[in-house]
Amino acid sequence: MNTESNKGTPSTLSEIGELGAIDRIIRTLPGRQDVVVGAGDDCAVVQVNGDAIDDMVLTSDPVVAGVHFTADATSESIGHKALGRVLSDIAAMGATPRWVLVDIVAPGETPIDVIDGIYHGMGALASEFSVAIVGGDMAEGLSLEIHVFGVGSAPANKSLLRSTASTSDLLFVTGKLGGSRLGRHLQVEPRINEGLFLRDWASAMIDVSDGLASDLRHLTDMSGVGCDIDLENIPISDAAQGMDDGRSPVEHALYDGEDFELLFTIKVERKQEFIAAWKTAFDLPCTQIGAITSDRDIIRCLNNGRDAIVLEQRGYTHFN
Amino acid sequence: MNTESNKGTPSTLSEIGELGAIDRIIRTLPGRQDVVVGAGDDCAVVQVNGDAIDDMVLTSDPVVAGVHFTADATSESIGHKALGRVLSDIAAMGATPRWVLVDIVAPGETPIDVIDGIYHGMGALASEFSVAIVGGDMAEGLSLEIHVFGVGSAPANKSLLRSTASTSDLLFVTGKLGGSRLGRHLQVEPRINEGLFLRDWASAMIDVSDGLASDLRHLTDMSGVGCDIDLENIPISDAAQGMDDGRSPVEHALYDGEDFELLFTIKVERKQEFIAAWKTAFDLPCTQIGAITSDRDIIRCLNNGRDAIVLEQRGYTHFN
Repeated sequence: MNTESNKGTPSTLSEIGELGAIDRIIRTLPGRQDVVVGAGDDCAVVQVNGDAIDDMVLTSDPVVAGVHFTADATSESIGHKALGRVLSDIAAMGATPRWVLVDIVAPGETPIDVIDGIYHGMGALASEFSVAIVGGDMAEGLSLEIHVFGVGSAPANKSLLRSTASTSDLLFVTGKLGGSRLGRHLQVEPRINEGLFLRDWASAMIDVSDGLASDLRHLTDMSGVGCDIDLENIPISDAAQGMDDGRSPVEHALYDGEDFELLFTIKVERKQEFIAAWKTAFDLPCTQIGAITSDRDIIRCLNNGRDAIVLEQRGYTHFN
Repeated sequence: MNTESNKGTPSTLSEIGELGAIDRIIRTLPGRQDVVVGAGDDCAVVQVNGDAIDDMVLTSDPVVAGVHFTADATSESIGHKALGRVLSDIAAMGATPRWVLVDIVAPGETPIDVIDGIYHGMGALASEFSVAIVGGDMAEGLSLEIHVFGVGSAPANKSLLRSTASTSDLLFVTGKLGGSRLGRHLQVEPRINEGLFLRDWASAMIDVSDGLASDLRHLTDMSGVGCDIDLENIPISDAAQGMDDGRSPVEHALYDGEDFELLFTIKVERKQEFIAAWKTAFDLPCTQIGAITSDRDIIRCLNNGRDAIVLEQRGYTHFN
């Protein structure tokens, strides 16, 4: 179907066409001073020189209809989540987000309003964190998907990794966990400022996307350590407290995922100084929930100091 | 479905699971010296410092089942094409490709061999051009898609743009055009070395992905110029010569797309010097097919110097 063949205002992707849709989008994108060439050429061109960038961090995340959002999600919230997931990954490195590209896959009958809404949601979040959307692509496909590719920067060798936790480091988490599927999963608040702050404090870090249990396992696996968790200290969200589905609030906090909080380790001798500095900097809760052990691969969950449950290997993974 | 529940060797994504599939892939990825942290953390970390990188170029391209490849394409060729399209964009900037991320969307019943084959095809091409695959993600979806995000580098302000062609520049194209859908579209040969060479010669450049007519239109639109094309000089591929579908070979060369050749402009006074330098450097054909004019927005097709056809606004676009 061609734009020319339609009377009135085009209202779907089929009617406006790929180039028409891309033109609409390009006009609305937030910029950055270091973008030499934004969307519209074969590649975007961004300036690295002269800004003390030493390392760059690269990440990508897909957001797929039926997996990461349901039909009742607003377009704005889908866009917000798609960008938010990538910014959360960049936050978990203690890096500054700079540029993103966006690939959208959608059926031809997708209303243009949906595409506009997605970009509106992404644009608002991008502006909040001074991120430039510098390009991307569109393709026709069976269901709606947004693939965001993000680039951030950090001083050389200062990025926070999953693989650098040591025995007797203390384990902390930001915010509250569990029950995100009641709506909070769409309202990702990427912990960018917290991540940058933690670059001076944390010994290892990851964001909670698959679930506390699963992401802690990634951290301990990659660091070659174990962990004792204090179940009674895990900060549980109001949503998880109120769920009436036969699973306990703490189970929701352990396994639900998509909290997009930061899970990190602090050297034991810096504990008091860290807690004081955090409270000065942020209102967001930050809770000590455990300690790293030398018992490689073993995560013990303690209830008031006694062995309570063995942590299950679960949390959200695709294809399972 | 869980790996544990299956007897014998797992053979589909559902059986091996997301993490199992990612583990398999990570082990096979080619590296680069400037990759500080590859796949496996929240982000990849790459080193920018100390290597005279001034500008970075960023691009992304989706490759979707049924749109960019059909069911008879081998997995290796799908992977090759997915990476090849991105490298072709980077080539069209005259930049050096460095790092890529790969998102794969696939149904759970996808055989692992298909995923392995895709990475095998990408890995071979990545090695050829010293590109590191530093991460990505996987998600379950309705059909097979590969989204490749690419990062390249160039000296400050030396990237070749679409928007910088001037009146009386000469128009050249590499290789031969048309008929790529008979198979050549899967065998993208990204013109990386040619693009780097052209950084010292071309005044504007684009790669031919949507079709010569369509991509020339992008170049003239963005440069605010027009163009006269000499139809008899357009280099036509053997595939396009032999197609028996009622369209002439030159029509195939103008409109088919997915040639992944470079279309660029050269200052008229450098013509002889350029042709000699090209012949010394490459065996690949490079053909003068027209000249830029000041007739903004007008592309005239000449046959032996006489007006032949008006160039149609067509070529491949999605949603039309």
